[in-house]
Amino acid sequence: MAQKPSIPKGTRDFGPAEMARRNYIFDTIRSVYALYGFQQIETPAMENLSTLMGKYGEEGDKLLFKILDSGDFMRGVDPSILCEGGTPKLAACICEKGLRYDLTVPFARYVVQHREELTLPFRRFQIQPVWRADRPQKGRYREFYQCDADVVGSDSLLNEVELMQIIDEVFRRFGIRVCIKINNRKILTGIAEMIGQADKIVDITVAIDKLDKIGLDAVNAELAEDGIPAEAIERLQPIIKLSGTNEEKLATMRDFFGANRPSPDLPVREGVECSADDVQYSEIGLKGCDEVEFVLNTLHALQPCAVASGLSAGVELDLTLARGLNYYTGCIFEVKALDVEIGSITGGGRYDNLTGIFGMPGLSGVGISFGADRIYDVLNQLDLYPKEVSTATQLLFVNFGEAEAAYTLPALAACRQAGIRAEIYPDASKMKKQMQYANARAIPFVALAGESEMAAGTFTLKNMQTGEQRAVSTQQLIEAVLA
Amino acid sequence: MAQKPSIPKGTRDFGPAEMARRNYIFDTIRSVYALYGFQQIETPAMENLSTLMGKYGEEGDKLLFKILDSGDFMRGVDPSILCEGGTPKLAACICEKGLRYDLTVPFARYVVQHREELTLPFRRFQIQPVWRADRPQKGRYREFYQCDADVVGSDSLLNEVELMQIIDEVFRRFGIRVCIKINNRKILTGIAEMIGQADKIVDITVAIDKLDKIGLDAVNAELAEDGIPAEAIERLQPIIKLSGTNEEKLATMRDFFGANRPSPDLPVREGVECSADDVQYSEIGLKGCDEVEFVLNTLHALQPCAVASGLSAGVELDLTLARGLNYYTGCIFEVKALDVEIGSITGGGRYDNLTGIFGMPGLSGVGISFGADRIYDVLNQLDLYPKEVSTATQLLFVNFGEAEAAYTLPALAACRQAGIRAEIYPDASKMKKQMQYANARAIPFVALAGESEMAAGTFTLKNMQTGEQRAVSTQQLIEAVLA
Repeated sequence: MAQKPSIPKGTRDFGPAEMARRNYIFDTIRSVYALYGFQQIETPAMENLSTLMGKYGEEGDKLLFKILDSGDFMRGVDPSILCEGGTPKLAACICEKGLRYDLTVPFARYVVQHREELTLPFRRFQIQPVWRADRPQKGRYREFYQCDADVVGSDSLLNEVELMQIIDEVFRRFGIRVCIKINNRKILTGIAEMIGQADKIVDITVAIDKLDKIGLDAVNAELAEDGIPAEAIERLQPIIKLSGTNEEKLATMRDFFGANRPSPDLPVREGVECSADDVQYSEIGLKGCDEVEFVLNTLHALQPCAVASGLSAGVELDLTLARGLNYYTGCIFEVKALDVEIGSITGGGRYDNLTGIFGMPGLSGVGISFGADRIYDVLNQLDLYPKEVSTATQLLFVNFGEAEAAYTLPALAACRQAGIRAEIYPDASKMKKQMQYANARAIPFVALAGESEMAAGTFTLKNMQTGEQRAVSTQQLIEAVLA
Repeated sequence: MAQKPSIPKGTRDFGPAEMARRNYIFDTIRSVYALYGFQQIETPAMENLSTLMGKYGEEGDKLLFKILDSGDFMRGVDPSILCEGGTPKLAACICEKGLRYDLTVPFARYVVQHREELTLPFRRFQIQPVWRADRPQKGRYREFYQCDADVVGSDSLLNEVELMQIIDEVFRRFGIRVCIKINNRKILTGIAEMIGQADKIVDITVAIDKLDKIGLDAVNAELAEDGIPAEAIERLQPIIKLSGTNEEKLATMRDFFGANRPSPDLPVREGVECSADDVQYSEIGLKGCDEVEFVLNTLHALQPCAVASGLSAGVELDLTLARGLNYYTGCIFEVKALDVEIGSITGGGRYDNLTGIFGMPGLSGVGISFGADRIYDVLNQLDLYPKEVSTATQLLFVNFGEAEAAYTLPALAACRQAGIRAEIYPDASKMKKQMQYANARAIPFVALAGESEMAAGTFTLKNMQTGEQRAVSTQQLIEAVLA
C-alpha cells in the first residue's frame, strides 16, 4: 500500500548493535562524572522560546526547532502580521516553545530557577539529546547527544584541574589516545591588547588557527588583509611561531606580556631598568599565564602518583585554540584523537557569567562536553569496543514443540536466574529456521532437547563458533555459557 | 533583571535525587528485558507527521506536538487556507514533523523501514520519552517516559508467558507487590457474539468494568440504558457475577461459549444431546479461553520450579479488563499495585496487525509497557528504594588552601581509583561553609588535612552520621569509606 516510511532528514534510528555501543559510551562517561562528585540532572526537551531565543546569536535563533502551539494557534493572530514582520514574527506568535539547542542554556535556566534548593558550588552532569535545524551532512545531525559536566559557583582552578582529569580518565577507559589542548581566553585578550588590536581579536585568532594548514607566510598575508598594521603583525611573530615545551611557551608569553617590565600601576621593581619601550605590560595576559601554569603544575604534581592518576594524555598549551571566543573568559580546552583524523572530540572552558542572562549575575562556571557521536566514530574506526559491550542474547533454546518447550522452560528460568541472557525460540518452526535465527543474531550457544534428552534429563549444547556439541545437565549448561 | 525563568507546563526538571531513582527504575527494567533476549533500539524524537497522523484517533491527532518547518515556512502557503480549512489545515502546511506520541507507532515504522535488516521474530525494547499536548494535571505530564518491550513476527503464546514473567521479575526486583490481571480480547468478542450484541461490545465492557464501584443493579441499569435488550442482559448475568479461581472462571466461560454443545460446523459429538437452544456456540470465545488457559497453565507449571522462577505475583483472570479494545486482538494484561491506590502501572497485549498501517500486513505482535512515572510514585510512597540507588558523593576533602590541597590531591585520586565517589571542596572557604556543603549534600564522610596531618602523612576522617573522628592513612581512609 503506502511507500516505505522514513524518518526526518538528519535524524537516526539506533538498532541493537549501535545501542549497545552508545550505552557503553554514555555509561563510561556517566560513571567517571559520578566518581568526581558530579550529580546528574535532566531538563525537558521543550523549553520556553523566551529561554532559548537570543542565547545562540542570530544564526542560532534560526536553527531552533519551534513547536506549534496546540489548539487554535492562530487565535488572536492578525494574518497581516505576515506583511509587516515576515515569518519570524509570525513564528513568534504561533510558537511558545522550542526544542533545546544545547545543554548549557537549560542548565543556566535550571540553576536560576532552582537557586533556593541548590548548594553551591553545584557540580552537575547531563547527558541528553539536543536538536538543531542545521543543514544535515556527513557527521552532522539534527538530533544528537551532548554529555556535559559543569561546576558553577566556584572560581577555583582546581575545577579546571579536575575536568582535565575527567577528560583523561574517560579516554583512558575508552583506550583512545588523545592530546588535550589548553589555552586561556585571558592570554588571547592580552595578545590583542599588547599589539594594540583589541578589536581585531577574532580575526587574529582565526588567522593564527590556520598556521598548520596554510603556513606562516599565508597567515601573515591574511592578517594584513584583515587590516592589522605591519608593526602589529611583526609583534605577533614570536606568538605565531611559538614552539617548545609548555614551560618554554609560558616563559615566552610572560616575556611578551612584560613580566620582566614594571606594571604601569605597580612600583618599579628593583633591579629592573625602565625605558620608554618597556612600559607595555598586560595584566590580563599574565593572569592567563598564571592560570594555565597552575593547572599544568597541579596536573604535573600528580603525574608520578602511585595510583596512576596523573594524566596519561599529553597536554599542550596551544595559543591558536579559541573556542567560541565571546563565551569563555578563562581556561579553554579541546581534545584531539591522535590516531584518527577527526575534529575536536571534547571541549570546554570557563565562563564568568552563565546565569547573568537569567538575572542571576556573578556566578562563575566551568564545564566540558564530550562529543558522543564523534567518540562513537573514533571507537568504531579503531575497533576499541570491549567484548563485553554487547548485551545481546547468549543462549537460545530450540523449540521442538509443546512438550519439549515445557521441558525447557525451567532450565531457561534457571539460566536467567544465573544472569544469562537467554531465550527460547517462541514457535516450533523448522530446525533450519531456528538455527538461521541464532546465526543472524550471533547467539554464541544453542541448546536443544528432543525425546532422548528429555528421557535423560539433559540438553545438547552447541557452541556455535566451534560447532562442538555435547550433552549437559542444566547446571553444566549454565557453567559452559558463563565460562 | 528578568523574572525567574520557568519551563513549559506539564514538563519537569529532574534533580540529582530524582535522577538516581529514575535511573534505578530504568536500569532494572532494562536488565530484565535483556535477560529475556530483548534488544534495545532508539528512534528519533521527531517523526514525520505522515507517520504519526491518523494512528491515535482524531483526539490523538490534536494531542500531537507539531514542529514548525524551519526557514520560510509560509512559502507557497496561501494564507486564505485559513478561511477554507482552519488551523488544522494550515498546521499541515507549515509542519512536516511532530514529536513522538508513544513508542508503538515509531516501532512499527522502524520494523517496516528496516525489514531487510531484521531477523524475525524481533524482540525489541525501547525506553524513551514521549510527548502529548494533554491538559496537564496531577500525575499527567506532557513529557514522560515509556518503557516498552514487544515481540513481532511470532504467534506463539510463549511470548505472552515470557512477558508475564518479565512483569513479575521486574516488580519482584522493585519489591512492589502486584496482581497481574489477564483477559483476552477473543473472550470479549465471544461474549458480545453470544448475547447477539457484537456491536455493543464497548458499552458492555464499560458497564461491567464499573461493577466494583457501583454494584450489580447499577451495572444492569446502565446496560439497559445503553439499549441492550433485557434478554441479553439476562444472559450476561453469569459473566458479570463471575467469581472463583481462574480455573472456575474458565470453566464457566467455556460453558457459556457452548463448549459442551456441538459447534454448528462440527459433527455432533457422541453422547451430547442437541436441542434448538443448544446450538449457540462461540468459536472465538473458546479460542480466547484456550489462549488464557495455555498461558496460566504454563506459568503454573513453572511455579514450583527450584530456582523460584514461577511468578511471585498473583495472576487473575478479569473479564472486565478491556484496554484499548480496538487495538488488541488476543491476550491483554494489566498490573495493579496491591499496597498503593493508583491506576494500572503496567499494561500490554497482543495485536495482530501492527505494521499493516505502514503497508506490511500479517505481522503479529505482543508487547508490554511499564509506566515509569507511576512506578516512581509507588516506590516513593512505599519507600522501597535500595540504599545503593544513590550515586551521590561519598567523601569530601576539606580545602584549607593551596598547600593542603596539593597534599590532598593524590589521596583523592587514590580514592577515586578505588571506586569511591569523592571530591575536594574547590575553594579554600571557611571551614563552616565547607561543612554546611557536606551536610546539604548528605555526604557521609569528610576528610581533612592541616599542618599536623601533613606532617604525619595522615588525614582526619570524620563520619558525619556518628560524628566520630580519627586519624587515618590514605589506605585506611579508603577502607573506612568502602566499609
